[in-house]
Amino acid sequence: MSVVIYPGSFDPFTSGHTRVVRRACRVFDKVVIAVAEMSYKEAMFSLDERIAFARDAVSGLEKCEIIAYNTLTVELARKHNAAAILRGLRAVSDYEYEAQVAAANKHLDDSIETVFMMADPDLAFVSSSAVKQIAAAGGRITGLVSPMVEKAILARYFPGV
Amino acid sequence: MSVVIYPGSFDPFTSGHTRVVRRACRVFDKVVIAVAEMSYKEAMFSLDERIAFARDAVSGLEKCEIIAYNTLTVELARKHNAAAILRGLRAVSDYEYEAQVAAANKHLDDSIETVFMMADPDLAFVSSSAVKQIAAAGGRITGLVSPMVEKAILARYFPGV
Amino acid sequence: MSVVIYPGSFDPFTSGHTRVVRRACRVFDKVVIAVAEMSYKEAMFSLDERIAFARDAVSGLEKCEIIAYNTLTVELARKHNAAAILRGLRAVSDYEYEAQVAAANKHLDDSIETVFMMADPDLAFVSSSAVKQIAAAGGRITGLVSPMVEKAILARYFPGV
Amino acid sequence: MSVVIYPGSFDPFTSGHTRVVRRACRVFDKVVIAVAEMSYKEAMFSLDERIAFARDAVSGLEKCEIIAYNTLTVELARKHNAAAILRGLRAVSDYEYEAQVAAANKHLDDSIETVFMMADPDLAFVSSSAVKQIAAAGGRITGLVSPMVEKAILARYFPGV
Amino acid sequence: MSVVIYPGSFDPFTSGHTRVVRRACRVFDKVVIAVAEMSYKEAMFSLDERIAFARDAVSGLEKCEIIAYNTLTVELARKHNAAAILRGLRAVSDYEYEAQVAAANKHLDDSIETVFMMADPDLAFVSSSAVKQIAAAGGRITGLVSPMVEKAILARYFPGV
Amino acid sequence: MSVVIYPGSFDPFTSGHTRVVRRACRVFDKVVIAVAEMSYKEAMFSLDERIAFARDAVSGLEKCEIIAYNTLTVELARKHNAAAILRGLRAVSDYEYEAQVAAANKHLDDSIETVFMMADPDLAFVSSSAVKQIAAAGGRITGLVSPMVEKAILARYFPGV
Repeated sequence: MSVVIYPGSFDPFTSGHTRVVRRACRVFDKVVIAVAEMSYKEAMFSLDERIAFARDAVSGLEKCEIIAYNTLTVELARKHNAAAILRGLRAVSDYEYEAQVAAANKHLDDSIETVFMMADPDLAFVSSSAVKQIAAAGGRITGLVSPMVEKAILARYFPGV
Repeated sequence: MSVVIYPGSFDPFTSGHTRVVRRACRVFDKVVIAVAEMSYKEAMFSLDERIAFARDAVSGLEKCEIIAYNTLTVELARKHNAAAILRGLRAVSDYEYEAQVAAANKHLDDSIETVFMMADPDLAFVSSSAVKQIAAAGGRITGLVSPMVEKAILARYFPGV
Repeated sequence: MSVVIYPGSFDPFTSGHTRVVRRACRVFDKVVIAVAEMSYKEAMFSLDERIAFARDAVSGLEKCEIIAYNTLTVELARKHNAAAILRGLRAVSDYEYEAQVAAANKHLDDSIETVFMMADPDLAFVSSSAVKQIAAAGGRITGLVSPMVEKAILARYFPGV
Repeated sequence: MSVVIYPGSFDPFTSGHTRVVRRACRVFDKVVIAVAEMSYKEAMFSLDERIAFARDAVSGLEKCEIIAYNTLTVELARKHNAAAILRGLRAVSDYEYEAQVAAANKHLDDSIETVFMMADPDLAFVSSSAVKQIAAAGGRITGLVSPMVEKAILARYFPGV
Repeated sequence: MSVVIYPGSFDPFTSGHTRVVRRACRVFDKVVIAVAEMSYKEAMFSLDERIAFARDAVSGLEKCEIIAYNTLTVELARKHNAAAILRGLRAVSDYEYEAQVAAANKHLDDSIETVFMMADPDLAFVSSSAVKQIAAAGGRITGLVSPMVEKAILARYFPGV
Repeated sequence: MSVVIYPGSFDPFTSGHTRVVRRACRVFDKVVIAVAEMSYKEAMFSLDERIAFARDAVSGLEKCEIIAYNTLTVELARKHNAAAILRGLRAVSDYEYEAQVAAANKHLDDSIETVFMMADPDLAFVSSSAVKQIAAAGGRITGLVSPMVEKAILARYFPGV
């Protein structure tokens, strides 16, 4: 059985993340979405909110599991019997950073692999931070995130509306 | 069951290919090495030789199967019930080319995914053409390819030796 | 009046080219598509065919003009009173190549500028050579080129069909 | 008439910006330099100062207009009847970031295009932040910015001198 | 006599830095490691600590000298009769940044050159910040830094242990 | 004494090559320009012509020596007591290729280093092949190569003139 860990801060989960997970479910037997614990200061949304967004976005995908974590990713992989860490690539600059992270993870545990899937071109510009910047500037984010996330972001930026 | 196709011309199979396959066998249930038929003019080694090199290099890896092909990669994947095409990434320039091939394959069959594994840094410089260039210039290729391939390459470049 | 030259071999004109021209017509007052003369050996299609394909693809775009050329691009620009050369960018590797070409053109004539438009992500994988490779392997190219070009390519690769 | 918006924080306007504008004036009928409003905390210079620097740098270029803005760039473009947003490219890393911004803008308003001009090689290293870093370290910035900006930066870093 | 300056914040000195210096000592007659003075706020380790780490890491390399600096790198080079600044390249993204820094230094003093050595592939992922991140997450950093630095980092992150 | 080998086909020597050598002479004690023997089929100019061009271009630089070679570059370096191979970097794509060549050379002889110098931005577009393409299209190459090379190229492309 092929199990992969899909780790991230997911602050918040975007349509890009959903698409990667949906595609990964075709390839692997189980996809564990691992949401990183972060301090409130760093993240826009709490761990509970970020997990709820992910759960909502991938509801219906039976191969998916969602967990929180605050350890090394390789430890997490071992704990969940995952042979590999799954990462999305959106651009050449992603590639370089991810190559360094993959090398660091290999140094930490040579038995855990990293596999990559490239973002679909139409969603390659959609990152959590891009979505927040667009929303903050008053731009429309419908389709870039789930309706649940869209509502939550707008409530943060435009609380009175 | 997660099946992936690992397509290439493998002219010849290198230690870089072997390493990718070995690592993929940890992650997937089956890895089908698909050796492209090519005219003699294009390839240094015949299809039979290239298959023999691959078979020798991955002997002992039970999850591996080796086939020849002369069709679209997505057709091959469908035929072998593979959910994904596996590709190795050695450099940023690989990334761009592979992103275009992955997009073309998605255009041809949206149900077949592409997954990537990055070359281990110590073998990132080892491509089939690099090995041939080094050998042609009289450089030592031990370790960059299997002993069987090393012998075959040297026989081509230095037939009398 | 802002006039730009859009030079290329267009062997053949693709949907990517059409999209760039269509978008350029929104920005500039006139877009001159300049089809490079090439020997039969280099090109799959004759100059006349390549011009016919371009003409067909942009029919209805009144700001467009189509010409053949066999000179330096900067000379062509001067001759047509174009202030700039227009180039499409599909990837980072395009960027580097085009930066060198733009620098060379600036060396040749400092008064002619180069402007760039990025390919739409959904067509970023569509180049003339990619289309030909897909077709040669038996893949479907509908949508990647105009119906006229699709028919011509298939006639070349599968003459009896 | 071809109108483009050239948006930025211009904190401060550099010789690189001046060169891009000067070259854009050869290609387009009107170039609207749009200076982003920013909080004092983020910017070294106030909005008024940044506008004054830009005005000084492009004085004599009749096709130029300078405005302040605090909206989405695509709204700004619509408001000024600009068909396109103009961006300078200084490096491959710029390219990737700009491709994402261009994709985001296309998502927000499909009718507004983005066009790019590459920085002249001799000024490719000149960004607003590079100039500030060089000046802070005591380096000479003559030629990298206008005399007006040079004086203002030195007054900030070395107020007593 | 060929003298080069190897400048950096070295916060802390890593095995990657050590390897570059060791290799540079084969090529140049003298390698001056220049440790940048930084405020406590910016750096994890004090200037004295950072110098001690470097000294420990390169002990035995007779061609090495270690100094502190708080000036422009080109001034430092002139002062030490160094013909060139030495920089390590770990990735394409390093390349672009370093190209800009080299161009800025050339602007400041055209007589000082910059020479580059590429990181060995097995250490390409090792930067000062990567080491600190791995350690902070509880990962093992043995081999990525000297024993002296390893001990100092662990004492910072896990003071009670 | 620091000796470096600067290998290439130099078909022909350009102003970019000259600039790199001139700058290297400031840093190293001796710069050995190594001109690769190539078959007439591959090269535009004969080995003797290519050596003559190089000799002419660097006349006056006393630290320079010019040799022909047809061996592995690392063997050449050993033979000339060179501690390092010198390579110019003109672009990110150069970087990747050169990183692979450097890794291959390290595999062949771990005691020979590779050092890099970046092309000056104003000459970054000048490669031997770019110069030949510009000349073939009728463009002016004055300044991109020495007068001796300019004359030789024009004689090839426009023999009757």
